Amino acid sequence: MTQTTQGQTRTESDTMGQVQVPANRYWGAQTERSIHNFPIGRDTFVWGRPVIRALGILKKGAAQANAELGELPQDIADLIVRAADEVIAGKLDEHFPLVVFQTGSGTQSNMNANEVISNRAIELAGGEMGSKKPVHPNDHVNRGQSSNDTFPTAMHIAVVLELNERLYGSVGKLRGTLAQKAEQYKDLVKVGRTHLQDATPITLGQEIGGWVAQIDFALSEVKHAEQGLYDLAIGGTAVGTGLNAHPQFGDLAAQKYEAETGFPFRSAENKFAALSAHDALVQVSAALRTLAGALMKMANDVRWLASGPRNGIGEITIPENEPGSSIMPGKVNPTQSEAMTMVTTRVFGNDATVAFAGTQGNFQLNVFKPVMVHAVLESIRLISDACLAFNDNAATGIQPNEARIRENLDKNLMQVTALNRHIGYDKAAAIAKKAHKEGTSLKEAALGLGYVTPEEFDAWVVPLEMTRS
Amino acid sequence: MTQTTQGQTRTESDTMGQVQVPANRYWGAQTERSIHNFPIGRDTFVWGRPVIRALGILKKGAAQANAELGELPQDIADLIVRAADEVIAGKLDEHFPLVVFQTGSGTQSNMNANEVISNRAIELAGGEMGSKKPVHPNDHVNRGQSSNDTFPTAMHIAVVLELNERLYGSVGKLRGTLAQKAEQYKDLVKVGRTHLQDATPITLGQEIGGWVAQIDFALSEVKHAEQGLYDLAIGGTAVGTGLNAHPQFGDLAAQKYEAETGFPFRSAENKFAALSAHDALVQVSAALRTLAGALMKMANDVRWLASGPRNGIGEITIPENEPGSSIMPGKVNPTQSEAMTMVTTRVFGNDATVAFAGTQGNFQLNVFKPVMVHAVLESIRLISDACLAFNDNAATGIQPNEARIRENLDKNLMQVTALNRHIGYDKAAAIAKKAHKEGTSLKEAALGLGYVTPEEFDAWVVPLEMTRS
Amino acid sequence: MTQTTQGQTRTESDTMGQVQVPANRYWGAQTERSIHNFPIGRDTFVWGRPVIRALGILKKGAAQANAELGELPQDIADLIVRAADEVIAGKLDEHFPLVVFQTGSGTQSNMNANEVISNRAIELAGGEMGSKKPVHPNDHVNRGQSSNDTFPTAMHIAVVLELNERLYGSVGKLRGTLAQKAEQYKDLVKVGRTHLQDATPITLGQEIGGWVAQIDFALSEVKHAEQGLYDLAIGGTAVGTGLNAHPQFGDLAAQKYEAETGFPFRSAENKFAALSAHDALVQVSAALRTLAGALMKMANDVRWLASGPRNGIGEITIPENEPGSSIMPGKVNPTQSEAMTMVTTRVFGNDATVAFAGTQGNFQLNVFKPVMVHAVLESIRLISDACLAFNDNAATGIQPNEARIRENLDKNLMQVTALNRHIGYDKAAAIAKKAHKEGTSLKEAALGLGYVTPEEFDAWVVPLEMTRS
Amino acid sequence: MTQTTQGQTRTESDTMGQVQVPANRYWGAQTERSIHNFPIGRDTFVWGRPVIRALGILKKGAAQANAELGELPQDIADLIVRAADEVIAGKLDEHFPLVVFQTGSGTQSNMNANEVISNRAIELAGGEMGSKKPVHPNDHVNRGQSSNDTFPTAMHIAVVLELNERLYGSVGKLRGTLAQKAEQYKDLVKVGRTHLQDATPITLGQEIGGWVAQIDFALSEVKHAEQGLYDLAIGGTAVGTGLNAHPQFGDLAAQKYEAETGFPFRSAENKFAALSAHDALVQVSAALRTLAGALMKMANDVRWLASGPRNGIGEITIPENEPGSSIMPGKVNPTQSEAMTMVTTRVFGNDATVAFAGTQGNFQLNVFKPVMVHAVLESIRLISDACLAFNDNAATGIQPNEARIRENLDKNLMQVTALNRHIGYDKAAAIAKKAHKEGTSLKEAALGLGYVTPEEFDAWVVPLEMTRS
Repeated sequence: MTQTTQGQTRTESDTMGQVQVPANRYWGAQTERSIHNFPIGRDTFVWGRPVIRALGILKKGAAQANAELGELPQDIADLIVRAADEVIAGKLDEHFPLVVFQTGSGTQSNMNANEVISNRAIELAGGEMGSKKPVHPNDHVNRGQSSNDTFPTAMHIAVVLELNERLYGSVGKLRGTLAQKAEQYKDLVKVGRTHLQDATPITLGQEIGGWVAQIDFALSEVKHAEQGLYDLAIGGTAVGTGLNAHPQFGDLAAQKYEAETGFPFRSAENKFAALSAHDALVQVSAALRTLAGALMKMANDVRWLASGPRNGIGEITIPENEPGSSIMPGKVNPTQSEAMTMVTTRVFGNDATVAFAGTQGNFQLNVFKPVMVHAVLESIRLISDACLAFNDNAATGIQPNEARIRENLDKNLMQVTALNRHIGYDKAAAIAKKAHKEGTSLKEAALGLGYVTPEEFDAWVVPLEMTRS
Repeated sequence: MTQTTQGQTRTESDTMGQVQVPANRYWGAQTERSIHNFPIGRDTFVWGRPVIRALGILKKGAAQANAELGELPQDIADLIVRAADEVIAGKLDEHFPLVVFQTGSGTQSNMNANEVISNRAIELAGGEMGSKKPVHPNDHVNRGQSSNDTFPTAMHIAVVLELNERLYGSVGKLRGTLAQKAEQYKDLVKVGRTHLQDATPITLGQEIGGWVAQIDFALSEVKHAEQGLYDLAIGGTAVGTGLNAHPQFGDLAAQKYEAETGFPFRSAENKFAALSAHDALVQVSAALRTLAGALMKMANDVRWLASGPRNGIGEITIPENEPGSSIMPGKVNPTQSEAMTMVTTRVFGNDATVAFAGTQGNFQLNVFKPVMVHAVLESIRLISDACLAFNDNAATGIQPNEARIRENLDKNLMQVTALNRHIGYDKAAAIAKKAHKEGTSLKEAALGLGYVTPEEFDAWVVPLEMTRS
Repeated sequence: MTQTTQGQTRTESDTMGQVQVPANRYWGAQTERSIHNFPIGRDTFVWGRPVIRALGILKKGAAQANAELGELPQDIADLIVRAADEVIAGKLDEHFPLVVFQTGSGTQSNMNANEVISNRAIELAGGEMGSKKPVHPNDHVNRGQSSNDTFPTAMHIAVVLELNERLYGSVGKLRGTLAQKAEQYKDLVKVGRTHLQDATPITLGQEIGGWVAQIDFALSEVKHAEQGLYDLAIGGTAVGTGLNAHPQFGDLAAQKYEAETGFPFRSAENKFAALSAHDALVQVSAALRTLAGALMKMANDVRWLASGPRNGIGEITIPENEPGSSIMPGKVNPTQSEAMTMVTTRVFGNDATVAFAGTQGNFQLNVFKPVMVHAVLESIRLISDACLAFNDNAATGIQPNEARIRENLDKNLMQVTALNRHIGYDKAAAIAKKAHKEGTSLKEAALGLGYVTPEEFDAWVVPLEMTRS
Repeated sequence: MTQTTQGQTRTESDTMGQVQVPANRYWGAQTERSIHNFPIGRDTFVWGRPVIRALGILKKGAAQANAELGELPQDIADLIVRAADEVIAGKLDEHFPLVVFQTGSGTQSNMNANEVISNRAIELAGGEMGSKKPVHPNDHVNRGQSSNDTFPTAMHIAVVLELNERLYGSVGKLRGTLAQKAEQYKDLVKVGRTHLQDATPITLGQEIGGWVAQIDFALSEVKHAEQGLYDLAIGGTAVGTGLNAHPQFGDLAAQKYEAETGFPFRSAENKFAALSAHDALVQVSAALRTLAGALMKMANDVRWLASGPRNGIGEITIPENEPGSSIMPGKVNPTQSEAMTMVTTRVFGNDATVAFAGTQGNFQLNVFKPVMVHAVLESIRLISDACLAFNDNAATGIQPNEARIRENLDKNLMQVTALNRHIGYDKAAAIAKKAHKEGTSLKEAALGLGYVTPEEFDAWVVPLEMTRS
């Protein structure tokens, strides 16, 4: 895609000189340079809505704060706010053509926002695009800012919004379905399994409830990590000292972001760390990894419990959503579990990227910002989408195969554990071994060894009671 | 995007019943089901050219082999070949709407290919789309095949082609530029650095030559790993036994793929491993990781050598491609190095995904196929794009800052090492320490201690000679 | 090492039969079997103090709780407590010979504790070792417990104690040194650097303060994650239902652990998750990874700032602790930074192990418990040791090289940024470019272009003021 | 452990001054300094046999080469060789007290070898330890060497020897057992499984043969990667230029290493890369990761196939090596699979460490050498040990449960696939669905639908034949 060769162009300039840009695009010289200098992964690595919207929020709040502090004329600020509102609303997405793999500070995307907002504001003011009058991309839109503090600010805003508007709801929906199933089957006794081997009984509700507890823990960790994102770099400008920003700019801009989004953003206490490291984002990534791990465990349990139909465990059934095999007619596969566990491996990979990148800061800057926020946003998106798909196409349709559950339970030898308290571990072991060796029931073996009476056995070995301590 | 709601539809069917699909799309019921069941990462995870093309090659060769073996009527095979050729040529990309996160065997993308080719072949034959006559998606297009053997076959074909048509050339171009620079500056003596500390001299050509050697090694490892991809699962069908495939089908199909692509594909000796693991792909991913690591080392050296302009090392200059800072006027940053090293962290993440997924096979199948091939293809694409960008916008413009190089060399104390052979390590150390402490030149310190004569010093301490053992 | 071949033996038995064990060791049959069945990494993977001590705490509290609940005779419990106290105190470490790579539930180490405590208690009671009277390893020492709940309980106790007794103090010591340096040099102005390029000024104190802020954040995240470890599996027994444990056992045992250690342990609300996943440990590992990443950034900054002595940045000096080179006399290297960053890579590897293992639970159990806790404990140990070494041998000796700092600052062009507010970004850029091109000072260029008067320049460009927003 | 405080000491010196060392140890001043400066992970991170032995081989061959080139007097070289032979033989291991986390070039371990060999050689010559006469640690033992080229040389030697003397044999033993089982059960037909769901038949031999094929592939990749280790840094000295080494030293020393070990070592073509990167080691690590992944897949299959005893798949049995549960009497668990898969997660972590460290070179040196070689050696050791344990305690005892296998096979619906070729995919699917829905056999359903005759069914659906394409 060479943006400049199609159709008419306009002359834009920056400190390095003039550049031709497409006449129907608001961006300026620096954006255009970046398009040509960074043709890396263009198909799939162009920034999407979350980052573009966050850039809009960033610039709007900055203009408002600067105006309030007397750093910008109110009319200039108003023009910026109007243009930024269009960015926020998604009306100008096609004017953000840059990819993730660019300057490591996100400078070019910050300038993309500055240029688009500047030109759109100029247009709103009836001026000439590219003239930088009356709204200059650096002196006005970027007033009191540096890419080094604005881009990480936009990163935090983008991730906070995606967590709240996408992740929590999607994961929560699946969590709700599972919690409802846990309640529904809280008394359905079945074989427990440890080491993949038959173990003492549990209820299906308990089994599912374990998944819910894992999801709850992981979600609470994501929400904890989210709090680290409320600390914004804004106000730090180029190296963290806040040079060229009004002393109150960071705090006031953060208030504007809170007003715009509803989340309690604040200017970070230590701006030097805020520019040179993104550890709060690393922590969010790690918590998403834990969440993905919890979902993998759940999805694996689901497919193993549904394995069969005749030669597996088969204690639950899941919906048949599509033909399972291009060669084996009638086969139905746990495809939602497969999509979910593939997502988990991807989230793990994204997290490896984020954590590695997070260590590579030098002096006053970490220049892996774009790849970090991209990977986190991708993980959020994938987990969210996968949870909704899994919920709708698998979880809601989980049904116990009660006949198989009962049959398995009746065969289980590990009910013997209930005898420990009455006859001791060693005798109980002898009963289980005898039954296993001879292929009999536990009761037959227990009576055969004379360790219990039939009445005692029936009184002591009661699966449902074994699930309630 | 809900494909079915826009405009007119056509009825398609599979073993689960009827489905409405967009009238202007060739896909059938199973593809349509997948669109609805797996709305995961739709924006960025739809398969691209490499996989679609490989599916076309796969189906074309399979039809040819089946016809030759009498498993398909020649006219049916011819129709399939014609349709598959259009898939290969990229004419039908919009008919492949599925995403990576689907069935873990890639069944739905295999069926997508079967359906599209079947319907397009039917159209070519003047039949009615969806009728499955005269070309049935399963019985004809998928003849003697299962997703379990076809999808990994397509994975291998796609990666081999991308390596050869994209990676080797792109990386090779950068390698060539660096090799030329290494030759050009083979006698330009400068300070060597170990532990980030001044060390004995090297030439700039030697320094750059080290990068070239790393790239050469990594490329040779990628090429070695590529060979593992020549072994194809084709012929294994559902579980590796080849059920329903002609006994010679795998070998013959592989010959067709060789004929189509020029690469020495063959039917894998052990099909059970070929379906249940993708270790050859894991090895390719690992070699790409090594390559990315080598590129990171090079890109880091470049930016450190170019650091400054006044307060860093500053021994080379790199092109000024864009304004470096939105706040610091006149700043020029090593942005190509930043894009490259960000790509490295992404390739590391992709590799983590691939290796994790690669361990998770069970019994006769690994159901992480799509996520594995996607991550490898993404790594290939990113490394390739980044190498071209780095080459064009950084490497070709690397210039030594000869004044700085000379100035640094003259100050360097580690030339003292050349005296070891003449006066021993301990006396040489004393000279260096004295010079360091007193801020003098080595020669002054050496003479001051009386360990050498001026003539000896000048004869023994000759930087350029110290670079030639 | 074959424990059984040296000297005299004693006969021990379990449900599988009799085994000979060394007469001078307290362990029993199951421990002995494990020695023979798992000769894996014996040199370095034998459990150390933290896990052995935690097993002692575990068994002591369990006996106390059981006695209080009437589940154990008081005299039996007292004997167990006496033996367990010896385990806690480290008197019986040589009786814990097992390695990490054993049963994935830690069963054999749980039984090792049961056997050692049983036999030592028997000895204290004047009984015959191996007789299981009066203190039976399963029926008494393991009363109301299963490996599945005890081992993860010991894992949590071990990690909480190591965090508090080792990590926080060691990292805190380094943090304190750095904070003191940050305060000491809070007004020492120097060049800032972003993208490795000269940037606007900061103070050395601000630079160091950024490291402190990162460490503080990471420590707060470790401490947050630690809280997840207070939830113990104890009381869940084999599958999470608590079968065979007194209903109040879990809660009461947790109280005992709190009494013993001072940390607010509690019986986990959901025991099914507590056995089948160890997500709290995964979160601790992730927070340790963030901490290691922060330390890497700091250690890298230190070695780059100390690079030289003549041809690097050289703005600080660090202690000379050892000769740096076996061939280059007089060379001094940043070896503590090197040890620290190597530790970081190891912590990253350990975290990869933990997170991978954490996903692999099935049904009611995750059988990667030993490898998870081992990796976390290793990370704690390495970070702690490395922080102490770095503190004592590097951080305390960091000194500014004031002459170099001043020299660099005077040359810096990025002070031009201070002019933005007065003459605009574009004119400021022109000044910087002119100075860079002509090799002059900023002031000369500024006056040459006529954009400012000498008085304005001196009033506006004041480095120390530029560090105070 | 504070070596110096126990008992008598001797005065040693280096360029920084005098140090007291234990009188009964051969090491000198630099080793002693390192003990004090790097108390990091002392319990478990002291170098073991492989690295110490490699250091001995390194120094022996260097002395031989130097003598032959006239760089060392023959009598000095002979003394060095005698001392080095003792290092090789393991007689001086207690004189190598240093840990992994030290100088990142391994300088201190190189000096440890120099000092120990020097002092032992002095002792053999009747001289005074610490006098450096007649054998100087730097001028003689380290002649023509630098840590920067010797330590990576020792790394390569150590890993090559461990691969050949430990890994190949251990993994090969397990591979041999599995291959024998594959042959033994090559006609034992059983249910295949894909997506965890019942699929078309395979033989147990084919299933096991898939594991063998994966191991074979992985081993061949390890052996390929091993070849990269034959290229040695020796001859490069401090920065790769070979300063102070005789021009033929590298080649001749490599010949000596070949003579000593039997492996075709050679002096690396590009020494700059050999010092500043360790990509060959990264590749070995990656291949070990692939091997570990293959072993995980095998170990997982084994435990799932052995799951039960009554409520799992139960198609094979594995040896009962120990009581499985401290609470559930009679339980037997797949503990060898658990140890093996835990090892896999550890190998993955080690590989993450190695790959990360491998990217972090700067200029002429990568200072993560010790942590890299340690992690690779640990992975080799763990895989080797785990394979032997798994072989002896699990693989050799794998037995088919033929009754269960037959029972499962008879119930399997996926035999329907054999009908595809005769009646088409769609009709075959209808048969399978009918049988599944009604709980009947395939044959009943097939006849019920009238798609085949009984004779046709019996002729077409023959499980053993379905396994032979």
